[in-house]
Amino acid sequence: MKDFPKDLLAGYGRFRDKTYPGLREQYNALAIYGQDPKVMVISCCDSRVSPEGIFNAGPGELFVVRNVANLVPGFEDDLGTHGTSAAIEYAVTGLEVQHIVVLGHCKCGGVQAFRARGIASGTPGQFLGPWIKLLEPAAIELACNPVEPNEDPQLGMEYAGIRQSLKNLRTFPFIEKRLADKHLQLHGAWFDIGAGELRVMDKQTSKFIPAVELLPGLSVS
Amino acid sequence: MKDFPKDLLAGYGRFRDKTYPGLREQYNALAIYGQDPKVMVISCCDSRVSPEGIFNAGPGELFVVRNVANLVPGFEDDLGTHGTSAAIEYAVTGLEVQHIVVLGHCKCGGVQAFRARGIASGTPGQFLGPWIKLLEPAAIELACNPVEPNEDPQLGMEYAGIRQSLKNLRTFPFIEKRLADKHLQLHGAWFDIGAGELRVMDKQTSKFIPAVELLPGLSVS
Amino acid sequence: MKDFPKDLLAGYGRFRDKTYPGLREQYNALAIYGQDPKVMVISCCDSRVSPEGIFNAGPGELFVVRNVANLVPGFEDDLGTHGTSAAIEYAVTGLEVQHIVVLGHCKCGGVQAFRARGIASGTPGQFLGPWIKLLEPAAIELACNPVEPNEDPQLGMEYAGIRQSLKNLRTFPFIEKRLADKHLQLHGAWFDIGAGELRVMDKQTSKFIPAVELLPGLSVS
Amino acid sequence: MKDFPKDLLAGYGRFRDKTYPGLREQYNALAIYGQDPKVMVISCCDSRVSPEGIFNAGPGELFVVRNVANLVPGFEDDLGTHGTSAAIEYAVTGLEVQHIVVLGHCKCGGVQAFRARGIASGTPGQFLGPWIKLLEPAAIELACNPVEPNEDPQLGMEYAGIRQSLKNLRTFPFIEKRLADKHLQLHGAWFDIGAGELRVMDKQTSKFIPAVELLPGLSVS
Repeated sequence: MKDFPKDLLAGYGRFRDKTYPGLREQYNALAIYGQDPKVMVISCCDSRVSPEGIFNAGPGELFVVRNVANLVPGFEDDLGTHGTSAAIEYAVTGLEVQHIVVLGHCKCGGVQAFRARGIASGTPGQFLGPWIKLLEPAAIELACNPVEPNEDPQLGMEYAGIRQSLKNLRTFPFIEKRLADKHLQLHGAWFDIGAGELRVMDKQTSKFIPAVELLPGLSVS
Repeated sequence: MKDFPKDLLAGYGRFRDKTYPGLREQYNALAIYGQDPKVMVISCCDSRVSPEGIFNAGPGELFVVRNVANLVPGFEDDLGTHGTSAAIEYAVTGLEVQHIVVLGHCKCGGVQAFRARGIASGTPGQFLGPWIKLLEPAAIELACNPVEPNEDPQLGMEYAGIRQSLKNLRTFPFIEKRLADKHLQLHGAWFDIGAGELRVMDKQTSKFIPAVELLPGLSVS
Repeated sequence: MKDFPKDLLAGYGRFRDKTYPGLREQYNALAIYGQDPKVMVISCCDSRVSPEGIFNAGPGELFVVRNVANLVPGFEDDLGTHGTSAAIEYAVTGLEVQHIVVLGHCKCGGVQAFRARGIASGTPGQFLGPWIKLLEPAAIELACNPVEPNEDPQLGMEYAGIRQSLKNLRTFPFIEKRLADKHLQLHGAWFDIGAGELRVMDKQTSKFIPAVELLPGLSVS
Repeated sequence: MKDFPKDLLAGYGRFRDKTYPGLREQYNALAIYGQDPKVMVISCCDSRVSPEGIFNAGPGELFVVRNVANLVPGFEDDLGTHGTSAAIEYAVTGLEVQHIVVLGHCKCGGVQAFRARGIASGTPGQFLGPWIKLLEPAAIELACNPVEPNEDPQLGMEYAGIRQSLKNLRTFPFIEKRLADKHLQLHGAWFDIGAGELRVMDKQTSKFIPAVELLPGLSVS
C-alpha cells in the first residue's frame, strides 16, 4: 500500500484541501440524491483529453465512457459482454440523459494504430487489433465519400471515426426511439490538444466547425 | 449544431479563457511529443467521480478507462471485441504505464443494478445485464470469504468488485510478466462521494484504508 | 437460333472475311500446338475496356480473366469454387505465364457500386454486394495511407483496388514462389476510356504514370 | 516499372496511334454517357479466343466475363463471393442486357483438365479442381443422354459445358423473370480456333450449327 503512486496521493491532498471544501454541499447532495447528468460523453482514454477539463465540468455534470479512440460499436443482439453498449444503455434508459457527445481528438493513438496496423510496440495487438477494427466502416466511408477531399488522412480518420460512432449510436433501438421523440440529441466534437481548440460537428454538412463560432459570448482568442 | 449543449459550450469557454492559457506550453508539448502517462486509472462512468478531479491531475497524467462499475473482464483469447481489455493492452504494452489503479466509489449504480438485478427502470438491461454479470465471481467470493463480516452489503460489493478486477488484471499474460519483472503495480482505491474521502486497498489484508493515513504530509481535515 | 444477335453474326462475318484470312496460319498453329501466352491480364467486364483492343494483341498473346472491377480475391484454403483463383492457378502453374497485369479503368461501375453501396437499380446486389466487398481492404488502406492525398475519390478507389488485387496475388503460395525465383512479375495498369490513355503503376511509389512516358518510341500525342 | 512487358507497351502504342484516333469520339461519348451494351458474353480465358476479335466488336458493344472453360455456376443463395454470378447480376439487373452468349471453343484446357482430372502439371489444382467440378452435371448429362452419339468426347464435353451453363443461367430468378417477359435471350456458341469457324446452338435440337448457315448475307468461304 506504501507503493500507491505518490503523485496521486499528493493530488488527492490538493483535491481534499482546495477543491472539495468549496463543493462540499454539492458532493453531499449528489451522494444523497444520486446523479442526474443531462449529458453523456464518449471520449478517448488519452491522458491529454479529459472531458471534465475541456468542458470545465463539475461533479454530477457528465456521465463519461472512455475507451480507446472513443468508439461506439453498433447494436448487437448477441447477449455478449459489451462494456460501451452497457454504459450507453444505462445512461439512456436508466439516467435518461438528453445529449450524447462523441468527443474525439487530434493525434489519437488508437486511430494511428488503426492506420499503421499496430501499436507503438509494432504488433497489432491481440485486443487492440479487434477493437479498432470498429474503425473499418469509417475508413471505407472516408475512402468512398470523403467529406473534405483534401484533408490530412489522420484528421480525416479521426473525424470519420466520430461520424461512424454517431451512426452506430442510431442503431440502438432505445436511442432511435428517443431521437424520434426528441428526447435525445447526438453530437460530434473534436479537440485539438496543442491549440486547446474544440470543434463541433455540423449535422447538416458533417463538417467540424470551431466551437468559438457557435456562441457570440465565446471569446475568439 | 445550434443544439450543442449550451452548458458544455460555456464550460469550454471557461476552459479556453482560464485553464488553457496557463497550460498552453504543456498542451503544446503534449501535442508535439505525445502522451507518456505513468498511471492508468480504470474507473466508473459515474458523473460524480472524475479521476482527474479526485487526483487533481493535469493533462498527460492519467490514462483513463471508464465503464459501468469500473470492471475489468478476465483475459479471453477469443479474438472478440473487448474495449476495456484493448485499453489495458494499449496502456501496458504500448505506453508502458507503471501503475494501474482500479477506482470504485460509493452508491455505484452498476453495483446497485447487479444487486437488484435491474437498472432504475426495473429491467435487467440487454447490455447492462451481461456486463455486470462480471461481478458474479466477486459476489461469490464475498459470500464465501467476507473480508469484513459486518460490512454494509452495497459497500461490500463495491470493494469486492474492485478486488475481482485486480484479480482479473493478473490473468493477462503481459501484466503477469510485468508484475514479475516489477515494471508494473496494481492498486485498488474507492471514493466516498459525500465525504470526498479516498480509500486505498491494503494489498496484505485487502482492506480499504483512508488515504490520509498513508502520507504524513496529507492534512487530516 | 434465328434470334442470335444480328450484330454479332455480322461482326463474325467481318472477322471471317477480313481478319481471319491474314491470321489463318497463326490460328492453325495455335490450334495444333496449343496456347503459350506470356501474359495474363485480369481486367473488368466493362464493354469499353477490351484488353486485346488496348494492347492491340493478336490471338495467343493474352490469357484474360474478366470479372466486375478486375478483382483478385486473397488466397483461401477452403476447397470452395473460386473462378478467378482457378484461372490464376491455371495461368501460373499450368501455362507458366511470366507476367500478370491487373488492368483497371476510369468510371468503373463496380467501384461506383461499392462507393454508392448499390448498382444502377439502387439495390446492393445479392451477388454483386458480396463480390465488391473485396474492395473493403482497399478502401481502408486508401483512407489510412493515401498515396495521393488530393485525388478524386472514384479514381483513388480504382487505383486502390488495383493495388489491393496485386497485394492479394502475392498471397498465393505458387505466385510468391515464382516472384522469389524471378519467374513471374506483377503489374498494375489503368485505362482512361475518354482519353484512350494507359497508365502503369510505378512499383516503387505505387503511383500511376502515363505509359507514353515509359518508352521513347511511344508517341506522346 | 521498366519491367512492364514491352510487347504490351508497343501494342498500346499501336492502339494509340492507329486505333484510338478513329474512335476518339466514340470513346469520349462512352466515357461521358457510360456503357450500354446489349450483349453479355461469357467466354473462356483462353488467349486464342477473344470475343471482341471473333465478333469484330468495338468499344461499348460486349460486356464480357471470362473464366476458365466459360462456366456459369448455378444460383446459390449463400451470401458467398461469386464473381461470375456478380457479373451476371450486374449485366442483367444493372445494365439490362438483352442477350447472354455463352461462348465455348475447341481444345479448351479447362475441359481437358476436367477430362484428365488435372492440369498440365499433372495435379488436379487446388482452385482449378473445385472450379471445373462445375462440369460434372454436364458430363453426367452427356453420358446419359448424348445429343450426338458418335461425337469426339472432347468436343462433346465442350458442347455439354455450354448447355449446362445455359441451364444454370435459368436458375437465377432475375433471369427466369426476364426470359418469361421476353426481355432477355440466352444463346450458346462455339469457336473452332484452327478453322476460324463459329457455331451457334440450335435451341430446338441443342445441336451446334455453323454460323455461316444462319444469315444469307454471310459469305461461306
